[in-house]
This record gives sequence, structure tokens and C-alpha cells, in this order.
Amino acid sequence: MFAFELKEKDNNTKARCGLITTAHGSVDTPAFMPVGTQATVKTMTPADLEGMGFQMMIVNAYHLYLRPGHKLVKELGGLQKFMGWNKSVATDSGGFQVLSLAKTRKILEHGISFQSHLDGSSHFLTPQKAVEIQEYLNSDIMMCLDECPPVEAPKEYIEKAVDRTTKWAKECKISKTDNKKALFGIVQGGIYEDLRQKSMDGLMELDFEGYSIGGLGIGEESEETYKTTEFCLNSLPENKVRYLMGIGKPADIVEAVAKGVDLFDCVIPTRNARNGNVFTNNGKIVIKNAQYSNDNLPLDEKCGCYTCKNFSRAYLRHIFLAGEFLSHRLLTLHNLYFYAILMKRIRESIAQGKFEELKHEMSAKENTKQ
Amino acid sequence: MFAFELKEKDNNTKARCGLITTAHGSVDTPAFMPVGTQATVKTMTPADLEGMGFQMMIVNAYHLYLRPGHKLVKELGGLQKFMGWNKSVATDSGGFQVLSLAKTRKILEHGISFQSHLDGSSHFLTPQKAVEIQEYLNSDIMMCLDECPPVEAPKEYIEKAVDRTTKWAKECKISKTDNKKALFGIVQGGIYEDLRQKSMDGLMELDFEGYSIGGLGIGEESEETYKTTEFCLNSLPENKVRYLMGIGKPADIVEAVAKGVDLFDCVIPTRNARNGNVFTNNGKIVIKNAQYSNDNLPLDEKCGCYTCKNFSRAYLRHIFLAGEFLSHRLLTLHNLYFYAILMKRIRESIAQGKFEELKHEMSAKENTKQ
Repeated sequence: MFAFELKEKDNNTKARCGLITTAHGSVDTPAFMPVGTQATVKTMTPADLEGMGFQMMIVNAYHLYLRPGHKLVKELGGLQKFMGWNKSVATDSGGFQVLSLAKTRKILEHGISFQSHLDGSSHFLTPQKAVEIQEYLNSDIMMCLDECPPVEAPKEYIEKAVDRTTKWAKECKISKTDNKKALFGIVQGGIYEDLRQKSMDGLMELDFEGYSIGGLGIGEESEETYKTTEFCLNSLPENKVRYLMGIGKPADIVEAVAKGVDLFDCVIPTRNARNGNVFTNNGKIVIKNAQYSNDNLPLDEKCGCYTCKNFSRAYLRHIFLAGEFLSHRLLTLHNLYFYAILMKRIRESIAQGKFEELKHEMSAKENTKQ
Repeated sequence: MFAFELKEKDNNTKARCGLITTAHGSVDTPAFMPVGTQATVKTMTPADLEGMGFQMMIVNAYHLYLRPGHKLVKELGGLQKFMGWNKSVATDSGGFQVLSLAKTRKILEHGISFQSHLDGSSHFLTPQKAVEIQEYLNSDIMMCLDECPPVEAPKEYIEKAVDRTTKWAKECKISKTDNKKALFGIVQGGIYEDLRQKSMDGLMELDFEGYSIGGLGIGEESEETYKTTEFCLNSLPENKVRYLMGIGKPADIVEAVAKGVDLFDCVIPTRNARNGNVFTNNGKIVIKNAQYSNDNLPLDEKCGCYTCKNFSRAYLRHIFLAGEFLSHRLLTLHNLYFYAILMKRIRESIAQGKFEELKHEMSAKENTKQ
């Protein structure tokens, strides 16, 4: 059921347009997936997301495994029915969250033993279990269990993590029972090219439906992110989806598209919104700043979102300072819309042979790096 | 510009249908006004409220006076433009909030001296100031400054509050400069009929565009609320709007409509939603309860709201327990929709001579008294 078709290639960069097909619909790439951590993109309804043109969201298997439980989600009809979202869903394996959120986690040969950050209960996440959880959730694009070591880990440790990730990827592939779903391997190896190569060689031998580049955007320098992404993309097969996990700011996305990335996810648009940090075509807005107290303009005069069509910066500042939920909602809507339009422009510019112009425009804008 | 037209009268009760016209549109009565405390009905957009059929909201002058300031709201075009709500707006005078929220407030002959609950700054709210604030906010229906004593206050004190409220009402009326706006007098007097009569006599002599019944729903018994409401409605002029402030539960609203009330406001639908308490046609739902953990039904199978059309109780319980903003939003939408439909049914049943049937139906339902 899962398919990826390459549709257009840019002449001047490695940017490309494609079409992912899943059991729940099509996804035009390059695509950005809003992050629905606990089975909701914070403050947004599925109708909001569809209205902006998003075709796939990503949900965190770790969170749903712990609460409400993957078995319950299956019993209730899977993630799509559960969330009221009838389009595609990707899931991460839970590995990243276990390592960043869980208490007293221990990485063993066969999986990760950890205690829930919610209630301290003990769990053991194996590659088999990670696939089972994601299959129960009814994810369209699943991730293999991986180990993402911290950026400061010694190279020897990162190599061990690569080996373990490859071993686990093999076990994930064997465990998969549902052919309608895709399973992606996750490339690790930090900023070391030899380790990245080793990771890719191991995964490509297993032949996954797509490849995720993990272990970036976790504290390394931007230049290293770009360099490592480019290195990986030079080796990954052209006919498979390439997913750069957890990245990033608008400028990062454009850079990565230029190197050949198809799929993105990031909490920046949603998290920034809740902190009052807004993306606009004229730079960053920190909505709490006094300069907006009597500013009757919309966040972005060029923006067509509901927030910009109906509310002034002064009003948005007021409800932000008053701690009103509506502030999170309206700013999230705007920031996600900004990303939706960015991805649409990226796809259109590639199709029209004008992607490099867009890339120049974006790299000239300081705000897109915020 | 402000007008009230009586359209239909029920044969069996004192229920009535009417039409309020303001500079910002029409309001079919009996009407319920969602409460937009700080210039937003918590979690809802104006589009949400319009979609449910609400035609007027009420906003708290006290809150907006303190933040962002009534002068700023005026500078930004008034409440309608500020909030992105192009329909009618009522405001309270601020008196009730000053007495319930402010620090070290002191009631003097010429007004109320108080310190802001936000920053401790000192303020003095006079009748003139209360009208100025509401005119600056561009309210369509303003309230006179009143004093609402606590339910346990001695009768002698309540009488003094009535006298002060009448005196302030006169000063409010004199201070009013904008003839497009309506000014309502607020009847006080606790649960004492002689004091209520004294209050009404004083206010009616001043001839306001409408009369609000204040000082109820603050801790007295339900029977006293009904009895006092009925007593007031027997004296208030038939051709003027009657507004029962801060009330109430669905059953209270139906009871009060039967006695001749036209206008309501209450935080119950919105506040209950944020606490996970849901109104349905089959009784109250406390969404966190374990019984809903695997319940794939909507909150209310008879409800046509977005929440009921798209989400199960199990999902709503999950996002409530996970502390997700979307829970507040979806439950608020449902509860307000429940109120919107209730008011619509009330108006239709009066017009069709079937209001008593509706009243019997509602009084048989325990859940409407929740």
C-alpha cells in the first residue's frame, strides 16, 4: 500500500518533489509533519490542520504507549479514528523519548529498560515491542527502534549506538507484520562520516521503505547539521523517502530540501507559538514585547491565516500576557500556517525550476533562522 | 440605536421572545451571552461563537480597565474590532469584580477605592468612571455601577447597598454621553422583597433601557433565587429587557425564562468544560472518570457540535488527563453549543406555544441542574 514516487527534480540543487501514498491518502513532498505528541497537535483540531493543507502528522509512540496505551488505541480503531484525523500518520519508535524523558533508563543489548516519567512504572522497550506498539497505533510510517546518543558522547560510544541501531533495525524489520505500513530505518552516527556511512550501509542492506536521519538538531553546530545531512543524502537511495528528524527552523528546512530531504517534523512552530514567538515574512515577532501594545497591524500583512485576518498584534499581545488559552491557539495556527505555506512554496518552486530563487530569498532573511 | 421589541408571549407562563437591536446587530431573546472575561471567551474564537449562533457576548470592564486599559481598547477601535467580534457586546460595570477580586477595596459614598489584583496599583471606581470605561470599550449594553453585598450581609447593610446602587445609577445615567449605547440599572436587595422593591422603584424612576437583576446566584438557596427573580419580574416594566446576571445552569435558565427573563450570562458552560464537566442530553459526564476510558461514543449522540461529530469520550478523556489545551477547547465548544441549542429551543418553543412542554422536559432532567 505504501509507495513513494519521485515527481520532479531541481536542476540546480538536489531538491526534489515526490508523492507518498499510504493507506490513508497522499502526501506531497517535501512535506512538514506537525507534531502531535500525545495524539494532538497542541491546541489544534484535525480540521485546523487539514485547512492549512497538512497531509500527515507525526505522533509519539512512547507517549501513547504509556497513556492511554497502544492496545486501547487499537481497540478504539487506531490513531486515525482516535484522533479524528483521517489522513496519514507517522510515528517515532519511542526510542528518542525514552532516552530524553524516562527515569533511570538503561540501554541493554535487546532493548531499553526504563521507568515511566508519568508514574515510575517499569517497562522494557525492545525492537519487537516498538514495532508492535506502532502497528497497534495503526501508523502509516513507522520507525525502527534506534539509539540517539547525546552530541557530546565519545566516538566509540556513538559507534556502539550505530551497531545497536542496525541490529535493532533488523529485528524491527523481521517483527513487522502489516504490509500496508512502511518501516523506516534511522541513520545514526553523530557528526562522524565514517559512522554515518557504516550506519547507512547496514540499514540499506536491510532495504527499508524510507530512511530517517536521526541524531541531528540535538546541540551540534548548524554547519555540522548541514554537512552531515548532505553526507547522508549522497549515499541514501534516490527512490526512497528521506526524512530529516526533528528539524527545524524555516531556513534549515530550505537548506535540507536543497540537499534532497523529503520529510520533516519539528516542534518549533508549535512550541515557539506557545512561548509567544512568531514567524512572519518580515522577521520574528516576540508578541509580549511592549512595542506591540498598541500595534493594530496583523502579525504578518502578507499572511492569509485566520489569526492574521482577524486579530491585531495588540490583541494577541493582550491575550498572551493575560495567559489566555486562545493566545496559544491563535499563534500556533499562524506559525503552522507559515510552515504550510513555506512547504507549498518549496514544492511549487521546485516544480517551476525556481527553487534556487526561493533558497536565496530565505537565506537572506535572518528571521527564518530564529 | 438600541431598541427592544417584544415579539411573542407564552400563554401559560411569563416567557417571552423579543429582539434586541444594537449598533452591532440583532439579538434574539431569550439569549445567553458567553462570558469573555478578558476580551476572549476562553479557548474560543469569534468564528466558533458565531458558528454556534451566539449574537452577543459579555466582557468584564474591570479586567479590561486594568489590562490592557480601556483607553487603549478605544484607541484600537473598541472591543468589537479589538476582539475580532463584529456582533453586540455587553459589559458589566466592574463593580462585582472589584468586590470579589481586588485587594483591600473600600466602598465609599462616591465609589469604590481598590488595589489591582494584578499589580497592587491603586484605583478609584466611581459611577462616572464606570460609564467612561464602558463607553471607551464601545460596549452596546453597559451596566450601572452597583454594590453586590455578600449573601450573608445583614439586612441593614443590604439596604445601604441598595441606596448607594440607586444613587450611583443616577450618576451613571447623567454621565452617559453616547446615545447609541444602552445603559441598564442593576436591581439589588438580596433576598428581601421590600429591599428589591425599593431598588426597583428607584431605578425605574430613572427609566433605563433595561434592568439587570444582580445579587443572585451568589450562595443563596435555589428556591430563593427563583422566588426573588419572580418577585422582581412582576414589577419590572414589560417593554424593557430583563437580564438575570450570572445565572446559570440549564434548568435555572428555563425556570427564569418562564418568569420573564430575556438575557443571561454565566461562566458555567465554559468553566465546567475546563474542569472536564460536560452537559449532555442524557445527563452529566465527568470526562476523567474511568468508565469513559474505552468508550467510543461521542459525548452526546444527539449533539451536532464539531466535538461530538469527530471525537469519542475515550479520546476526550485521554487529552483531558494528558493536560492538553485541546481538551479545554473541545469541551468548551460542546458545552457552549449545548447552551446555544437550549436557547434556540426555548425561543422556538415560545413561538410555537410549546414552552411549557420544554420546561417539563428540562425539570425532569437531573443533569440540567448540575
